[in-house]
Amino acid sequence: MPATRELAGLLGLNRTTIAAAYEILESEGLIAGHVGRGSFVTGNGSTTGAGTDWTALLGHAGQEASGPAGGAPFGPAGELISFVMSRPSRELFPLDDFRASCAAVLARSDLADILQLGSPSGYEPLRRRLLDEARRQRLAGPGDDLIVTNGCQQALDLVGRVLLRPGDRVVVEDPVYTGLKNLLAGMGAQLVGIPVGPDGLDTDRLERALSREKPRFIVVTSNFQNPTGATLPLAARRALLDMARSAGVPVVENDSYGELRYHGEPLPAIKELDDSGSTVLVRSFSKVSFPGLRVGWAVGPKPLIDRLRHAKEASDLHTDQLSQAVLLEFSISGRLEAHRQRVLRAGAERLAATLDACRRYLPAAARWTQPEGGMNVWVRLPEPLDAGELLPRARKEGVAYVPGRYFAVSRPEPGALRLSFAGLAPDEIRTGLRALGRIVEAGLEDSRRSFDPAPALV
Amino acid sequence: MPATRELAGLLGLNRTTIAAAYEILESEGLIAGHVGRGSFVTGNGSTTGAGTDWTALLGHAGQEASGPAGGAPFGPAGELISFVMSRPSRELFPLDDFRASCAAVLARSDLADILQLGSPSGYEPLRRRLLDEARRQRLAGPGDDLIVTNGCQQALDLVGRVLLRPGDRVVVEDPVYTGLKNLLAGMGAQLVGIPVGPDGLDTDRLERALSREKPRFIVVTSNFQNPTGATLPLAARRALLDMARSAGVPVVENDSYGELRYHGEPLPAIKELDDSGSTVLVRSFSKVSFPGLRVGWAVGPKPLIDRLRHAKEASDLHTDQLSQAVLLEFSISGRLEAHRQRVLRAGAERLAATLDACRRYLPAAARWTQPEGGMNVWVRLPEPLDAGELLPRARKEGVAYVPGRYFAVSRPEPGALRLSFAGLAPDEIRTGLRALGRIVEAGLEDSRRSFDPAPALV
Repeated sequence: MPATRELAGLLGLNRTTIAAAYEILESEGLIAGHVGRGSFVTGNGSTTGAGTDWTALLGHAGQEASGPAGGAPFGPAGELISFVMSRPSRELFPLDDFRASCAAVLARSDLADILQLGSPSGYEPLRRRLLDEARRQRLAGPGDDLIVTNGCQQALDLVGRVLLRPGDRVVVEDPVYTGLKNLLAGMGAQLVGIPVGPDGLDTDRLERALSREKPRFIVVTSNFQNPTGATLPLAARRALLDMARSAGVPVVENDSYGELRYHGEPLPAIKELDDSGSTVLVRSFSKVSFPGLRVGWAVGPKPLIDRLRHAKEASDLHTDQLSQAVLLEFSISGRLEAHRQRVLRAGAERLAATLDACRRYLPAAARWTQPEGGMNVWVRLPEPLDAGELLPRARKEGVAYVPGRYFAVSRPEPGALRLSFAGLAPDEIRTGLRALGRIVEAGLEDSRRSFDPAPALV
Repeated sequence: MPATRELAGLLGLNRTTIAAAYEILESEGLIAGHVGRGSFVTGNGSTTGAGTDWTALLGHAGQEASGPAGGAPFGPAGELISFVMSRPSRELFPLDDFRASCAAVLARSDLADILQLGSPSGYEPLRRRLLDEARRQRLAGPGDDLIVTNGCQQALDLVGRVLLRPGDRVVVEDPVYTGLKNLLAGMGAQLVGIPVGPDGLDTDRLERALSREKPRFIVVTSNFQNPTGATLPLAARRALLDMARSAGVPVVENDSYGELRYHGEPLPAIKELDDSGSTVLVRSFSKVSFPGLRVGWAVGPKPLIDRLRHAKEASDLHTDQLSQAVLLEFSISGRLEAHRQRVLRAGAERLAATLDACRRYLPAAARWTQPEGGMNVWVRLPEPLDAGELLPRARKEGVAYVPGRYFAVSRPEPGALRLSFAGLAPDEIRTGLRALGRIVEAGLEDSRRSFDPAPALV
């Protein structure tokens, strides 16, 4: 390694900063300092023996994920106004209510049972309550059962595990949540993307895909789809269900956002409309309460849930019981519903601020969706702008978003971007979109200039 | 359904009991009562429409699990003395210490960060502590990294996900923990079982298997193997590592029980002996503290841990952060170590009671392992006894265990059974083994009688 003085000069940083960085590297065993000789890279432990060639071994597994989570431009936000994460606002967490729910659980006489090994089906009192609720809401019939999972993500994972064989086709929305894309691709599935318009996925295309592609299953987001915010209208839900039923293709209804409707009439879930036992519905506590507690569930036909339970046991035995018990108490006590009402009020304000600021600050040729809930608005910038290319400039101006291409299945939309608004206060939303508007205008200006005929050289 | 009066008569039960049972069935939608006509099975919702043929769809997935967890003879214990579950004693849980750790977490100023969406690598303060500890114990070198998982089970699952392709061979111990068998078989792996003797797995057979079978990886339990309780001696650890290294086959060291050594000298982990970066070590809080909180970890070469992180994100985004924060606090505060000392004292007593009662109550021809820690003793009954056939009688006499065949890979041992002693008090252990001794003697008596020459018919 260069001497600290030398590197400090090279990078224009204070020498103590460099020394501190070297200290961290040394404490992690990555470099070793030798008095009078300087610092040396210790070399990677995995290459010191004959041993295992991990690169060769891992190269074949085809599990590489891609997406915004790891990418440098989406790293820690700093002073940024970040529209990057589709997650609830930390500031709205009702900490005292959460503490009260924990206290109630800790005071219970059966606390030891919560700490003991549990069931792959879930913590029974929670499972029972969720199933009763699902029955009351006509989301579960006599042929259905329910399993608790680590959020929606694990429910989708378990469905993939029990249904997919490598090479199988799966119908998904296009664009779609990167976590689903990576999950299915990692399992060796071939994704068949169905375009999502302002009214959800295109059912004509779906019909063609069902007959041509013989997919193993369909994953559809009924409400406030991630990334577009689109909701599938009632007629489209019925049509989708009819098509899936006659093709004998199961429907996985991903409904992480359904409880976050800020206005408009709630629609019946596809699961509710389905009396043929073809649908499994996936929901979670994460978007409406605390995503750091990983609790979701799947409700669907018993033969499927039985198999999900086996897959769950193989995956991780069962979902954490402390969090299941706390969320059950949070729900039974009425605190969840009270919190949901606060989240709905805040969400309505934030959505309105986003749509209003889009109107005010984005150029006339830009288009964006008009969600009635959820956490995401999908913006299409006018041609020839590329949202990915604009991002570095946007970050320099203090605003970040996820370019649309991260969500593309087979129809890249270079001009698209996702605005996740739920974690930002209305003021931040306005400031962020004002900055974005300036950058977009500047980008358009640049593009016009670059298309000007070159002046004569004189 | 028969009328309640009729069924009550048939089963010799009170009519109100039957009525209560019908009420439960009705509340679950499985039967419907019609006044004056009786009760009728409602039929399975999954067969009421054209819909999805789940049996056909699921039949091909090859994910069916087998094992003691679901089987009827291992159901709720009632008045049984149950040696069935390899899990810690509920009675030893230090509830007040647990409450104090939760209170400390709930009082933290960064509580909201714990409730917010986290990292696939784990809750950073916990991950950092575990990695520092691993470095201090020479279990992690400069080329290593650490990921937090939902217990050891998920660590094994993630390793399978990133390394296995269907049809791959995996070397495991024979007999082996059913959860590992089901997991790997569910992934389409072919298991190559290496016999486990009192001194752990047979390294000669391992050497032959490595050259003949070209396995994708080896899973080995260094300490107090489940189900045998056997520990791999130092020389065998070194031999295994050399063989694996020269064959270029990675070693997955499953060490859920390592911290539960009741006597004898601790041995260095295979991971510690390995300077070639071929080993990933899997550990957990579950056996030494609270299995209802699903927190374990894997420490190994960075390229592998990177891929496990991608697989983890696809599986369930990240491990529950409330439990991670609570277990971190439980550990930092010294309460974990204090609890471990109590668990070690109790475990030593229970192990001694088990071995002593085996000597006292089992017939002279029976054999059993002599573990120095963990939760399991492996008993071999004399021929021609079948531990599975004896089980119904044992349950009738108030004692339960898991027959050896559940753990078999390719060498069924009908006479073997697993005694999981950690959850039972010494008195229960003695009472249980006295009952087991009687049943075994009776079984031997029966078998002698059935081999008597048939008397002449007169």
